[in-house]
Amino acid sequence: MTSPEVYRVRAQALSDYEVAFVDDILDPAGSDLLRCGNRTEFRSRRRIAVLDENVNALHGSRIREYFERHGLECQYVVLPAGEPAKVMDTVLAVVAEFDRFGLDRRREPVITFGGGALLDLVGVATSMYRRGVPHVRVPTTLLGQVDAAIGAKTAVNHGAYKNRLGTFQQPAGVLIDRRFLATLDERHLRNGMAEIVKLAVVRDEQLFELLEEYGELLIEEKFQGSSPTGDRVARLVLQRAVHGMLAELEPNLWEHDLDRLVDFGHSVGPALEMRARGDLLHGESVAVDIALFTTLAAGRGLLADKAERRILDLLERLALPTGHDLLDDELLRRAMADTVRHRDGRQRLPVPVGIGTAVFLNDVSEEELRRAVRQRRCEAVPT
Amino acid sequence: MTSPEVYRVRAQALSDYEVAFVDDILDPAGSDLLRCGNRTEFRSRRRIAVLDENVNALHGSRIREYFERHGLECQYVVLPAGEPAKVMDTVLAVVAEFDRFGLDRRREPVITFGGGALLDLVGVATSMYRRGVPHVRVPTTLLGQVDAAIGAKTAVNHGAYKNRLGTFQQPAGVLIDRRFLATLDERHLRNGMAEIVKLAVVRDEQLFELLEEYGELLIEEKFQGSSPTGDRVARLVLQRAVHGMLAELEPNLWEHDLDRLVDFGHSVGPALEMRARGDLLHGESVAVDIALFTTLAAGRGLLADKAERRILDLLERLALPTGHDLLDDELLRRAMADTVRHRDGRQRLPVPVGIGTAVFLNDVSEEELRRAVRQRRCEAVPT
Ligand SMILES: NC(=O)c1ccc[n+]([C@@H]2O[C@H](COP(=O)([O-])OP(=O)(O)OC[C@H]3O[C@@H](n4cnc5c(N)ncnc54)[C@H](O)[C@@H]3O)[C@@H](O)[C@H]2O)c1
Ligand SMILES: NC(=O)c1ccc[n+]([C@@H]2O[C@H](COP(=O)([O-])OP(=O)(O)OC[C@H]3O[C@@H](n4cnc5c(N)ncnc54)[C@H](O)[C@@H]3O)[C@@H](O)[C@H]2O)c1
Repeated sequence: MTSPEVYRVRAQALSDYEVAFVDDILDPAGSDLLRCGNRTEFRSRRRIAVLDENVNALHGSRIREYFERHGLECQYVVLPAGEPAKVMDTVLAVVAEFDRFGLDRRREPVITFGGGALLDLVGVATSMYRRGVPHVRVPTTLLGQVDAAIGAKTAVNHGAYKNRLGTFQQPAGVLIDRRFLATLDERHLRNGMAEIVKLAVVRDEQLFELLEEYGELLIEEKFQGSSPTGDRVARLVLQRAVHGMLAELEPNLWEHDLDRLVDFGHSVGPALEMRARGDLLHGESVAVDIALFTTLAAGRGLLADKAERRILDLLERLALPTGHDLLDDELLRRAMADTVRHRDGRQRLPVPVGIGTAVFLNDVSEEELRRAVRQRRCEAVPT
Repeated sequence: MTSPEVYRVRAQALSDYEVAFVDDILDPAGSDLLRCGNRTEFRSRRRIAVLDENVNALHGSRIREYFERHGLECQYVVLPAGEPAKVMDTVLAVVAEFDRFGLDRRREPVITFGGGALLDLVGVATSMYRRGVPHVRVPTTLLGQVDAAIGAKTAVNHGAYKNRLGTFQQPAGVLIDRRFLATLDERHLRNGMAEIVKLAVVRDEQLFELLEEYGELLIEEKFQGSSPTGDRVARLVLQRAVHGMLAELEPNLWEHDLDRLVDFGHSVGPALEMRARGDLLHGESVAVDIALFTTLAAGRGLLADKAERRILDLLERLALPTGHDLLDDELLRRAMADTVRHRDGRQRLPVPVGIGTAVFLNDVSEEELRRAVRQRRCEAVPT
């Protein structure tokens, strides 16, 4: 259909990357981190490693030893930890480090060791610098390992909005090593559990059952497998969570389809997280959102009371919040308005209709939402 | 190859957009601007139009009339003109306008009327906002119409570097209307000519001949076709330039292949442009670079003296610079180092080996470059 007056441009881009489970990636004898996984080969021996201050304090010396041992010339960039740093200013600080290093466009990967906040923000920097330099992600939190690190999304918060600016970028590689979780505190382990619960509720009943039975054990053992059962289940849960998430993301990597099951937990959650300004972690806001729409589904008769109870019980046993005082009418209204704008004019609210299955709602009224919020507030375990 | 330990993610993204020539896009009877081209249908009647201050002064009232006449609810964003505004701060100012508008993710296109600088910077904003909102580009400069608007690249300058931050984004549509060029000053017309010369030299001898014969007439008539010959040639040159450029870009939209003919003029040009800080327009720096590598190719015996002369003559007749005092040894060294980093460790310098054909060099020494610079400086018409 290309005519003199209209030129039609058609092109196909292929994404192809690997998410690999590796045991003790920092073992100097191992080569996964050296090779950055299997799919890419980097001809230069120069690297930039980005770490947040906590990861640096806990794992920085082993990371430095690894690269030194292998004779890689590595520049280390240490950034402030957590959500407050996930803004454009920090992206520009990272960019300044790239300039200082003289970063090559293709052959010198940036390797990030950190949680979802750090991975997201370095992802913005690597996807914009020279319109994209390779980024290897080494998630060090549970939430990072089962969610933030493995898809194609990067983001920073901006103004009052969660993840308002970002890009889609395929990672050069993702290396998941549960050893990092050994140093993670309990609250952040529970935080990561929330995203696993989300996935289990909408698509994987067996994963849900594993969480019901072993969730507390996993947190207690920090996924390190101190007991044989704990070891087996830790591996299994991480694998099912990662595989399940990727099975959802892969056919819809750029979100052409906005009916996304994995948006469960993310309908009013992000606005709540931003409003709570640090009092709620990301996964905690996801948990509140899960509880809210679970209750709403049950209120409509879409979800059996017993299933509702199981979901709420699981959240409570994992010590995740199931309601929140900040969820007032005004916040609900603004959150829903923005979610609709983000989902191209429709609500597309994923709600469970059983353990492991969900549907999308497009006709939820403010009153119905408020009712569910009130119900959650009465019954919720105070946090 | 997906195993429990390694999950391989594979996905394909399709780019598909149209670049359309439209006569008098602002004619209230026309519907191209209303529909934003053929390939997308926007269900909302809300729009954001972005204009730079000069385009606003010259065409703002007709643009407003058009949208009003068609009953579209349009928010206008007027930005400072030109290269100094092409920075991250302006991107964030655009983002603030998107927030104020409450921009939907898919259904409310951002429509930019302006030159390459404005299109590039609004492109960064639209590609990052909600990880991408639709952007319709209406280039109003010659350079924008034959180059900046039609590909997939967005960018802002950052620090000392040209286009250091940016993304790849497929436009929702590109509408080219030569009427806008009627208000463009002569220097900017010549500036756009430089990118056409670039393309002609590396891939299109006939286009080169058209420029030799009619270049000055086109500038005189500002591509408006005041004479029958001028009209015919203006259409022909715009079409050949756009089709030729797209034929180069389409198979390599994301620049997986870094041997790019269209990088001719862009090897030391960008560094020179940044150093000249506003004294050189983009196309003018491209012209200097074209002259430099043409001379270098001739010096190697790759290009016949007669062909060299024709290229330099054409640039001179179009009143484009063919040398520059700022091109000292230090700038050359830094420019080449950065170009090599940008081209994955190799020079990949396109140089002409005839009118309409080029090859890539990877073994150009500093001394050889300096020699070509000196030669250009001696012979160059002072600017
Ligand atoms: N891109 C995506 O698809 C995606 C998906 C889900 C969540 N997210 C984002 O992820 C973020 C939340 O992730 P997070 O909870 O990992 O955030 P985080 O990066 O803030 O990490 C949480 C805390 O754990 C610390 N930490 C990291 N690794 C540690 C370790 N091994 N031992 C001890 N402490 C460690 C960090 O310093 C930080 O204080 C949110 O910003 C959310 O929006 C992104
Ligand atoms: N993205 C790409 O692929 C690509 C390709 C080539 C160049 N570029 C970029 O394009 C930029 C140069 O483009 P440009 O020269 O169009 O820049 P520009 O946007 O600065 O426009 C030049 C000047 O013309 C004015 N102007 C615009 N339309 C006018 C009209 N119809 N009448 C009168 N005045 C008008 C503007 O206000 C400005 O002062 C550079 O920043 C360059 O890096 C990008």
